[in-house]
Amino acid sequence: MATQDDNWFIEHFDSAGTAFGLRLKRKLEEARTPYQHIEMWDTETFGYLMTIDGATMLTTRDNFLYHEMMAHPALFSHAGARNVLIIGGGDCGTLREVLRHGGVASAIQIDIDEQVTRYSEKYFPELCESNDDPRAELRFEDGVKFMQECDAERFDVIIVDSTDPVGPAEGLFKAEFFRHCHRALADGGVLVQQSESPLLHSDTIIRDLHHNMREAGFSHTRTLPFPQPVYPSGWWSCTLAGKNRDVGAFREGDAADKDFATRYYSADIHRGALVLPPFMQDALS
Amino acid sequence: MATQDDNWFIEHFDSAGTAFGLRLKRKLEEARTPYQHIEMWDTETFGYLMTIDGATMLTTRDNFLYHEMMAHPALFSHAGARNVLIIGGGDCGTLREVLRHGGVASAIQIDIDEQVTRYSEKYFPELCESNDDPRAELRFEDGVKFMQECDAERFDVIIVDSTDPVGPAEGLFKAEFFRHCHRALADGGVLVQQSESPLLHSDTIIRDLHHNMREAGFSHTRTLPFPQPVYPSGWWSCTLAGKNRDVGAFREGDAADKDFATRYYSADIHRGALVLPPFMQDALS
Repeated sequence: MATQDDNWFIEHFDSAGTAFGLRLKRKLEEARTPYQHIEMWDTETFGYLMTIDGATMLTTRDNFLYHEMMAHPALFSHAGARNVLIIGGGDCGTLREVLRHGGVASAIQIDIDEQVTRYSEKYFPELCESNDDPRAELRFEDGVKFMQECDAERFDVIIVDSTDPVGPAEGLFKAEFFRHCHRALADGGVLVQQSESPLLHSDTIIRDLHHNMREAGFSHTRTLPFPQPVYPSGWWSCTLAGKNRDVGAFREGDAADKDFATRYYSADIHRGALVLPPFMQDALS
Repeated sequence: MATQDDNWFIEHFDSAGTAFGLRLKRKLEEARTPYQHIEMWDTETFGYLMTIDGATMLTTRDNFLYHEMMAHPALFSHAGARNVLIIGGGDCGTLREVLRHGGVASAIQIDIDEQVTRYSEKYFPELCESNDDPRAELRFEDGVKFMQECDAERFDVIIVDSTDPVGPAEGLFKAEFFRHCHRALADGGVLVQQSESPLLHSDTIIRDLHHNMREAGFSHTRTLPFPQPVYPSGWWSCTLAGKNRDVGAFREGDAADKDFATRYYSADIHRGALVLPPFMQDALS
């Protein structure tokens, strides 16, 4: 449920019992697509805001936290990824981070709703600056169906940049979907899924995610927490799964010497994110 | 500004342009003291909530993040603190964490408003479980005045567990106050101050804090970020200052072998928190 009163957008996370809001300048435009209701807002202090069905998706100011952490830990955990798949991620911010890696030869982004990308091109052009990269392919179709039909061992890294595991994205958290991902990854491949809040979901969604990834055949799984102010609790996570690869290790030297700038990610931040606080260790053990 | 509609407590952080809220069961009680308006609430998912003048102070569910990070990094950065002072901290949660350290011989807590402690004893009894420890002394008086008059070199660690640097607590962020703290610390002493949001305040409050601490004579300063869902942006920090002590180092072995349980703090978390993301390094350089 979301309300807009007195120039505040307030999103009530009913299941969490928490709410988050941003002060608005104004609503910019909206679209009802075959899939969802997308709204674009101009905020007082966070730049542009995209909401989908009343849920906060991203803002200009803080999306770097999420996009950097969805891309770089997975890519630096892999020995040298050439073929990358992004499921969801229609705002193209994850795609941009992936293409910063010079070794990547191909990155396919599959989001079901083209309107997300069209709005992102208009309001978040900085996230779309790599959309014309010859290595990038943007497809607008059903990511679950794509994975079902995907050739075996086609990708080195799969990034599931999805919405919450309720409604349309629920299937993206299940063992069946992860089995398709596992088959589509080459040996040594890495899967990463956004995995909700360490405070709110460690003993539910995150624990189940590890279980489902292991059941699908992944040998190693690790959850990395990071701050994300506009999502419930302001604390978020991604969970990595390795196909015969230890995702608790990464190419630390390459990460430290990377030839592109980041605002949140660094080799030291990556190492720190691999450490879970005791309460999370307990929840996941 | 805070509003209470349809069983939601929503705090609007006007200067940040963000809002945070919790779903309520009901208001429990309130008190207008000579200093502030304190309200106690029962929430649906975060246990009890204390607000002061409409601002969220703490909840049952997530205060462990803040209290552990206000106490343990400072104490494990010190060579072996015996005398500890807490300015503010009337909920007694920081005091409890301090007294987990067996080497501490004395911990004085100075909060101006006794009603905060009385409510905490009633609604957060777990935070007050060390109030009767013979090493603890609870005083209800003006912390700024206490520091002005404090004997030199009386304390090993000073913890400033204050509200935001607007209104009553503004003086607790200024160089003059830090000069009094510096004088009151023995050589090798450590000061720690809660220091707001890395996302929102790195290039304002946090940068100024380092400047003011250095100007007051502290040789070393370090900011450690940590999650804190109920505060603006959900991402918070403490800033350590050392009197001829490098607060970028700590007793890692002692922290790893500590004889008490924590839910967020660990030696590994402490080491990780000493790493700042690139955007913060830039803001503070």
